Amino acid sequence: MGQVGWKGLCLSLFDYKTEKYVIAKNKKVGILYRVVQLSILAYLVGWVFVVKKGYQDSDTSIQSSVITKLKGVAFTNTSELGERLWDVADYVIPPQGENIFFVMTNLIVTPNQRQDTCPESTGIRDALCSKNRDCPAGEAVIAGNGVKTGRCLKVGSNTNGTCEILAWCPVEKKSKPKKPLLATAENFTVYIKNSIRFPKFKFSKTNVLNTDNDSYLKHCHYSAQHLYCPIFHLGKLVSWAGNNFQDMASEGGVIGIQIEWDCDLDKAASECNPHYSFSRLDNKFAEKSISSGYNFRFAKYYRDAEGVEYRTLIKAYGIRFDVMVNGKAGKFNIIPTIINVGSGLALMGAGAFFCDVVLLYLMKKSNFYRGKKYEEDENQNSSPRAAMLKGDFRAGMQKGPCPLSYDRLKPCRSIFWATGVQPTENGRVSHSAAPASI
Amino acid sequence: MGQVGWKGLCLSLFDYKTEKYVIAKNKKVGILYRVVQLSILAYLVGWVFVVKKGYQDSDTSIQSSVITKLKGVAFTNTSELGERLWDVADYVIPPQGENIFFVMTNLIVTPNQRQDTCPESTGIRDALCSKNRDCPAGEAVIAGNGVKTGRCLKVGSNTNGTCEILAWCPVEKKSKPKKPLLATAENFTVYIKNSIRFPKFKFSKTNVLNTDNDSYLKHCHYSAQHLYCPIFHLGKLVSWAGNNFQDMASEGGVIGIQIEWDCDLDKAASECNPHYSFSRLDNKFAEKSISSGYNFRFAKYYRDAEGVEYRTLIKAYGIRFDVMVNGKAGKFNIIPTIINVGSGLALMGAGAFFCDVVLLYLMKKSNFYRGKKYEEDENQNSSPRAAMLKGDFRAGMQKGPCPLSYDRLKPCRSIFWATGVQPTENGRVSHSAAPASI
Amino acid sequence: MGQVGWKGLCLSLFDYKTEKYVIAKNKKVGILYRVVQLSILAYLVGWVFVVKKGYQDSDTSIQSSVITKLKGVAFTNTSELGERLWDVADYVIPPQGENIFFVMTNLIVTPNQRQDTCPESTGIRDALCSKNRDCPAGEAVIAGNGVKTGRCLKVGSNTNGTCEILAWCPVEKKSKPKKPLLATAENFTVYIKNSIRFPKFKFSKTNVLNTDNDSYLKHCHYSAQHLYCPIFHLGKLVSWAGNNFQDMASEGGVIGIQIEWDCDLDKAASECNPHYSFSRLDNKFAEKSISSGYNFRFAKYYRDAEGVEYRTLIKAYGIRFDVMVNGKAGKFNIIPTIINVGSGLALMGAGAFFCDVVLLYLMKKSNFYRGKKYEEDENQNSSPRAAMLKGDFRAGMQKGPCPLSYDRLKPCRSIFWATGVQPTENGRVSHSAAPASI
Repeated sequence: MGQVGWKGLCLSLFDYKTEKYVIAKNKKVGILYRVVQLSILAYLVGWVFVVKKGYQDSDTSIQSSVITKLKGVAFTNTSELGERLWDVADYVIPPQGENIFFVMTNLIVTPNQRQDTCPESTGIRDALCSKNRDCPAGEAVIAGNGVKTGRCLKVGSNTNGTCEILAWCPVEKKSKPKKPLLATAENFTVYIKNSIRFPKFKFSKTNVLNTDNDSYLKHCHYSAQHLYCPIFHLGKLVSWAGNNFQDMASEGGVIGIQIEWDCDLDKAASECNPHYSFSRLDNKFAEKSISSGYNFRFAKYYRDAEGVEYRTLIKAYGIRFDVMVNGKAGKFNIIPTIINVGSGLALMGAGAFFCDVVLLYLMKKSNFYRGKKYEEDENQNSSPRAAMLKGDFRAGMQKGPCPLSYDRLKPCRSIFWATGVQPTENGRVSHSAAPASI
Repeated sequence: MGQVGWKGLCLSLFDYKTEKYVIAKNKKVGILYRVVQLSILAYLVGWVFVVKKGYQDSDTSIQSSVITKLKGVAFTNTSELGERLWDVADYVIPPQGENIFFVMTNLIVTPNQRQDTCPESTGIRDALCSKNRDCPAGEAVIAGNGVKTGRCLKVGSNTNGTCEILAWCPVEKKSKPKKPLLATAENFTVYIKNSIRFPKFKFSKTNVLNTDNDSYLKHCHYSAQHLYCPIFHLGKLVSWAGNNFQDMASEGGVIGIQIEWDCDLDKAASECNPHYSFSRLDNKFAEKSISSGYNFRFAKYYRDAEGVEYRTLIKAYGIRFDVMVNGKAGKFNIIPTIINVGSGLALMGAGAFFCDVVLLYLMKKSNFYRGKKYEEDENQNSSPRAAMLKGDFRAGMQKGPCPLSYDRLKPCRSIFWATGVQPTENGRVSHSAAPASI
Repeated sequence: MGQVGWKGLCLSLFDYKTEKYVIAKNKKVGILYRVVQLSILAYLVGWVFVVKKGYQDSDTSIQSSVITKLKGVAFTNTSELGERLWDVADYVIPPQGENIFFVMTNLIVTPNQRQDTCPESTGIRDALCSKNRDCPAGEAVIAGNGVKTGRCLKVGSNTNGTCEILAWCPVEKKSKPKKPLLATAENFTVYIKNSIRFPKFKFSKTNVLNTDNDSYLKHCHYSAQHLYCPIFHLGKLVSWAGNNFQDMASEGGVIGIQIEWDCDLDKAASECNPHYSFSRLDNKFAEKSISSGYNFRFAKYYRDAEGVEYRTLIKAYGIRFDVMVNGKAGKFNIIPTIINVGSGLALMGAGAFFCDVVLLYLMKKSNFYRGKKYEEDENQNSSPRAAMLKGDFRAGMQKGPCPLSYDRLKPCRSIFWATGVQPTENGRVSHSAAPASI
């Protein structure tokens, strides 16, 4: 028996068990269900597959390198500096040509500063004084340029003056040219070379047309037609970001240049193109507030004949450009495909659940449907049936098919009802009597 | 017929098919299942929706720009430099005020270095020598400052010396002030302006109070009360990162300033606030090892009257601050909502699966429940029933309802069991005989 | 009754309802289903759990700080500069030792440039002229070095010359040393210290062996054996990236150094190791095109005795190294575990769906299986059965079992078919007659 049992067990392992369904001839719910199914299908096909490319394995860890190079010169003629020509080495900070670069458009120059003592600028609250006691020696001026020496310097017969400080003297004047000095920076051009690589797919590309024709890259400018000529006119860059170069030039600001690579590697490599977008990163709306614009101070250091150090302090206003590269590549892969299809189908289960709720609790005849859907297990008395169903005759007999004792009749009868056979008035059932009548 | 068939088919398309369930009056499993359902529901509501905001479409590709500006001056009085005042242009490197900035707190100055020959520093193993042959001309000193000239220089009557090298002479002395020179840098303040933008939702904000009241931003300091006054006291920054400024000042280190924007755009924009956190990025635990601290060398280049270049080498110790911005924004969107609800419900299926296993294999009466759950398809002999169910009489007849040949009796009988009709002892069944009796 | 009803309802809440299954003795589909189940299980265990570690909660927001430090000196002997030694302060730009650093390997020096007038370089198309009118005064030379003064300068008896410009004079010569000046940079070493932190798990680590043995870090070099000695030989770095240092040195380029931290925090911290990979980021394939290589210009500014500014312009070619750190940490967490198991099981549903399609539409006997799977709800007439099933006898009676009126016979008959009872030719059914015969 054991042997046979095992064999049976093994065989039964390969019986396919499928849910038993009840067909509810209820068009309302039926249609509802079809709608749900269709919308899930639409979602699966339309959203997951077409839009989100759910059949692809994707790589978002893009490796990118950005090299930037500016071109252009500006001529200025100011009292401090006289006639002066500015070239790349002068106005680009830092010079390395990385993904973040700053173009100076306006500046306050304070030449020949030396370590010395001089009056603090009158603009600084903490430095105002009426007597020396207001300037305790050795105390640094808050938000100021130096350390108080202990003297209060007054101009002429004023009762008020500013503290004398030890600092880089003379201190910077708080006035900046209304009109940007390097206004012509608008015509400078920047060449932005971006090379990317998707390590997972060993795919690399650059945003520069790979041509031997030097003159092309020497004279082209970026446009929808010249997508692979990444040479930008600064003025255009700013206007594309929704701003006016001359406005930004005087106060400074930050422009973001996003380069987006969204590559479908199931298509040809030529389909994988960079997409540029431009935006102003510092909030221009605070234009009025003191927090507006972008500027910083730096100095050039010199030594005079005696070897004494002096410097030229420059407060530089200008536009910082941040080149940000991001992207993702996708390539067909069977695993995500299966997963997405699978979970999509799994969603159907949720749809069915929803429709069941409608059918079983919101429909007029829901009571009846519940009856159909949920089959009582008629515990004790139906066990023989269960046993016999399994063809195990003895088991059935042991548990005993119901005798005709009245107390057990009702449940028993219910079996017969279940078989659609109609009871006689006296509760006895004809065909179980029939044999007797033979 | 075809026409009718098609019509039927079409209609049947809109019959709703729902799984047939068996009710197992087993309170244990029943309760278990309810618990599972409740926990899934709890997970769905509590975790997916409340915590993870699963009903929102999110944008993590934050666009951010950081502008930093330091304020403060320090006074030093050393033998090399004499009385000297350090201001922003002196101690901030690089000066541009980007998201990474370095504040010099201690330094070794080696002034007036010229291209010349001089003895290598005694600290360098490779430069130790006893005779000229130990210093092959033209060979670079490993981890040293120059190229050997071929001579071994000895001080006085020592038998050992160091190679003469061609280098920037004199070479740097390997001694650094125990006490940080710019200890007062602790009182410097830094203004960190951060503007962010979520392109997907066209939402932008800045961490600076948008006020016209200049004095506010001139005098406030960051605190829980002044969340929108991003002016930080360097000493506090370091202490918030769990370190002591003076300790870091002498050896240097790296402090990370994280700005987190976690915005729920279903709420008011004013609910979207920056959250600051501070941490030390270089591992302080290696304090003892040579790999500790943060320092670098840079030089200022000069020309003397003859136009000969000389330089001042500065080994700068200090604290580097890295401002890192990240964030995400969420806004209600129907698609993720449906997906999450759906997959949550789909999870119920898994729960049911789990409970089935318990019911069918771990329960005392599991044998019986299996019988209820799995209905045999009584292959050959029940096919007529199947056929008749579909009302296709002939088909049923062809396949033939079971004849009374004894060998086929058993399976046949099983049908009748299935119908709850009891066989007579001789295996004949009354009602199939009944018609004959008419 | 109400009370009883509520009690019953409450109890019934804890009845476990399980789908009823039909066993299709179809080995083909059975095996198919088992295969599907096994593959889903394999996917779940193999892919989700073993490969993707689906049982872990992961943290990808790695906090990282990189400190780089170069060592090495180079000796050059050129006409412009004479004998010169280059040390770190000379060839590393910027000096701060951040995650992006540039090593100068070749350069064009233009010393003693002053603001003056001189002929534009002949290489620039826009500056070529035959008469003064070709050089409108004040116009900037496109892609040139200065602003035209209005004069056309010709050498000797040439009919063509170049415009005179106001610029930093003399202008740069367009010739660069074929052989890289600082070829010996190949032997420089760089020390890359990387400290990481996973905030969510409060786990931090560094890529430097935490030893007190200074000499180790002074003399080791990175290799598979010395994973925690992040000291790299520049030449090796470049070769690991698949390039030749000397080739890159003359034109310049960009090398990416990826440091990957993939940490399983369920294991010991010592199992969490950095993984280095090296790649060339600028596309070397464009070697020929003008867009190849990497170089930039910067200047050193001086003042002569009269305080007039002059500068040395340096066009620096070299290799930029970008250190990129990314990583993720995972730690066991119950929630993702449950989710993954759950959705894995939910996938089974999809598998069953698939097999059903096969069974019900592709199998020979699919017609029969459909009959088994889908149970008609025999609307009106079977309601009593449904009612009685629920043991509610009266309800059953009210709705009334089907009378023998002929119009209602067909549906009624279908019940009997369902019970496997055979009709007589005249449509009357024996056992419903039987009682009459009694």
